[in-house]
Amino acid sequence: MKKIDILNGGYVILQDYMGSDLSVTNSARVSYNKKKDVLDDKDKGLIDFLAREGHTSPFRHTSLQFEVYVPLYVARQHWKHIIGSGFQDPFVAWNESSRRYITEEPEFYIPNANEWRSKPANSKQGSGENLSELSGGVFTKKLEEHIAEGERLYEEAMEAGVAPEQARLFLPAYSMFVRYYWTGSLQGVAHFLNLRLPEDAQYEIRVLAEAVQELAHEKFPLSLDALLKYN
Amino acid sequence: MKKIDILNGGYVILQDYMGSDLSVTNSARVSYNKKKDVLDDKDKGLIDFLAREGHTSPFRHTSLQFEVYVPLYVARQHWKHIIGSGFQDPFVAWNESSRRYITEEPEFYIPNANEWRSKPANSKQGSGENLSELSGGVFTKKLEEHIAEGERLYEEAMEAGVAPEQARLFLPAYSMFVRYYWTGSLQGVAHFLNLRLPEDAQYEIRVLAEAVQELAHEKFPLSLDALLKYN
Amino acid sequence: MKKIDILNGGYVILQDYMGSDLSVTNSARVSYNKKKDVLDDKDKGLIDFLAREGHTSPFRHTSLQFEVYVPLYVARQHWKHIIGSGFQDPFVAWNESSRRYITEEPEFYIPNANEWRSKPANSKQGSGENLSELSGGVFTKKLEEHIAEGERLYEEAMEAGVAPEQARLFLPAYSMFVRYYWTGSLQGVAHFLNLRLPEDAQYEIRVLAEAVQELAHEKFPLSLDALLKYN
Amino acid sequence: MKKIDILNGGYVILQDYMGSDLSVTNSARVSYNKKKDVLDDKDKGLIDFLAREGHTSPFRHTSLQFEVYVPLYVARQHWKHIIGSGFQDPFVAWNESSRRYITEEPEFYIPNANEWRSKPANSKQGSGENLSELSGGVFTKKLEEHIAEGERLYEEAMEAGVAPEQARLFLPAYSMFVRYYWTGSLQGVAHFLNLRLPEDAQYEIRVLAEAVQELAHEKFPLSLDALLKYN
Repeated sequence: MKKIDILNGGYVILQDYMGSDLSVTNSARVSYNKKKDVLDDKDKGLIDFLAREGHTSPFRHTSLQFEVYVPLYVARQHWKHIIGSGFQDPFVAWNESSRRYITEEPEFYIPNANEWRSKPANSKQGSGENLSELSGGVFTKKLEEHIAEGERLYEEAMEAGVAPEQARLFLPAYSMFVRYYWTGSLQGVAHFLNLRLPEDAQYEIRVLAEAVQELAHEKFPLSLDALLKYN
Repeated sequence: MKKIDILNGGYVILQDYMGSDLSVTNSARVSYNKKKDVLDDKDKGLIDFLAREGHTSPFRHTSLQFEVYVPLYVARQHWKHIIGSGFQDPFVAWNESSRRYITEEPEFYIPNANEWRSKPANSKQGSGENLSELSGGVFTKKLEEHIAEGERLYEEAMEAGVAPEQARLFLPAYSMFVRYYWTGSLQGVAHFLNLRLPEDAQYEIRVLAEAVQELAHEKFPLSLDALLKYN
Repeated sequence: MKKIDILNGGYVILQDYMGSDLSVTNSARVSYNKKKDVLDDKDKGLIDFLAREGHTSPFRHTSLQFEVYVPLYVARQHWKHIIGSGFQDPFVAWNESSRRYITEEPEFYIPNANEWRSKPANSKQGSGENLSELSGGVFTKKLEEHIAEGERLYEEAMEAGVAPEQARLFLPAYSMFVRYYWTGSLQGVAHFLNLRLPEDAQYEIRVLAEAVQELAHEKFPLSLDALLKYN
Repeated sequence: MKKIDILNGGYVILQDYMGSDLSVTNSARVSYNKKKDVLDDKDKGLIDFLAREGHTSPFRHTSLQFEVYVPLYVARQHWKHIIGSGFQDPFVAWNESSRRYITEEPEFYIPNANEWRSKPANSKQGSGENLSELSGGVFTKKLEEHIAEGERLYEEAMEAGVAPEQARLFLPAYSMFVRYYWTGSLQGVAHFLNLRLPEDAQYEIRVLAEAVQELAHEKFPLSLDALLKYN
């Protein structure tokens, strides 16, 4: 399984999948009762036609399961898209690690000195210019220290017998890496990509989207391109 | 791909699938960040535990695509279950052949002389005793004739230039075979089976359910048994 | 409750609803923590903005429950849209009458002599010219007779003790009126309308869509217009 | 609109709703084509029957919209239930305030000195005994200070021009109050309550569940009781 590293310690893996460009076209032909074993030029046209005309149900007889490891605030953006989009299928399933049961050490996302961005000039959602590395370096250090302090307080509370769900109030949650499985159909994946690949999407979620795109494209090259073309 | 014949001319095929008993347990362990390559005895216990306690999301990181060919009135019972159950996932997708585009000859379901059932004695949903073969034979013949007459009228209307969607008003729709793809997770499939396998379910839908069970069980033996045990 | 009659014996009723144009804008402002009691001009702009930019979740904090009574083949087109669209919300619920429990007499849809249409000239999905009333009258009569014969055979089978679910194989199912409740959000309703209001939609489903539009528009005039404008 | 205060600064409001115990029974009777205007004793029996036998679709022709204001870690438990339950309808819609657009001051959840709990004795999910008030007071103070420091660093980063989505890495996210709208059917609401009302659920989510129960019960007393009885 291919693993793409993102965001200073995170990653995306395509854990499993079902279907292919060919299974999309075979699903589309149920009305004609014709199945093919090899994708041909007519199928390419058919895939384009289905995406263009919005006949999307054939794209949902597919399934992709991703394992994602990103900071909590990126995970939240991801699921807010899913739950907020009104689109049925992307969340066939979502399984997320829980602070209650995890025994591994928590890991945190800390931007490097050259990765701090300024506020965008206008209110569009994208990102602004980077801060100077000097200025960024100061915040990297401050964040490291604040997170270390939070971890120390978390440990202190745990040792004093505080219930884990209260102790974690001390943890710097936004930057904490969480791991989850996300299973959706190709249409669900494309729906997410159409919203999060554009330039004006926030940087971190765009990085996640690009990794998802690369992994999905290897398995459904024509179908994914068509769905992104006519979103 | 294995094909199970049912209902005098219909069938069920498991067209494709994603996952296994092992992928269920690996999904369940996301909180512990442990993946295994081979299913062991602990996994068996874990599958049983997940189903018993209703921790069902790991069962939804799976996908099964069936091709189904049954009379319309059975298809309708199938989708009414799906749409009526309030359960999210079984209809990742449903693609059905349309009378408008099909060029193949319509086929019809006609019970054999020994397959006509009487009304059940009480109001529970199951089926009653069979009619005598003599009595059944009469209805088989009458249905054949009525369907033939409907087909004749349909053809007559089509030849007179009537739009296909109006011409089909003459077709004996309930007994007409329709073909559809149904994609759902293992939990969605089990949800359907839990309602349609029992003795008191209508005969035709039970026959469909048994074929679905046989096909799904080959791929997810432990998980399906556990989901059916604790429904 | 307003009732709109359609299709020679069918109807649509808006049974109940939740929300208003104002509740849409109040839902949209959750990030700003501002609620208004009266809709003003800024709200009109906001509704337009939300629909245009695809920020549709505020439109889903609404609910409309319709009672629909149409021939089975129209009902099937309706739910195929719903189940096939991959759109999450329109099927909050769907309850349909069942032949098994209904004690009322079945009613059937029979086009009038001047309502039979010819096949459309090209393969686009709309409808063709009407047949001559003379020619149509012939099919109206033939359909009446064929339906009457089917009903007679159904009664005969019922009297002979055949189980209702098998007896109905004799019923002319496509033209039989069915009654169902359909509950969805305004976005779900608009999604259906965007596909079924256009000229090239099949006549019967367009008639249903127009009635749904009229009823929904009375309760959500600005929001529905905006959703239809930017579909 | 009734507002129930919970968790030191949070609240739940029933913003709007559609339906009643009567509309549930009327939806159930669609097969019989009978509507009533007043709920009678037979209806009470019918509601009990529907819940007991799992005929739940009539309960989904209802809708409740809640406004919820709770700490982020409680909100996350809430939506994890929703997204993880595989149950279709509870998330008709979810709208949540975003740190990006809010201009109001952030508010934080800090347990009082007498509200800190110890780890439960066994691994069941409930909560343990409370810490001594003396010991709890220490953690209340430490959390106040750590949150104040995080806020200070957040402000500092904002003033230095850091993009808000990065600046919030300094905020103590778990304890930060978030506001969201949650719209679901009565069945969806009951599904949540069945899992989160029991003694062994975590304290904070149980408090939220109890407020939701009180508000929903006022509008659907018989239906909610029946759904909770036979969960």
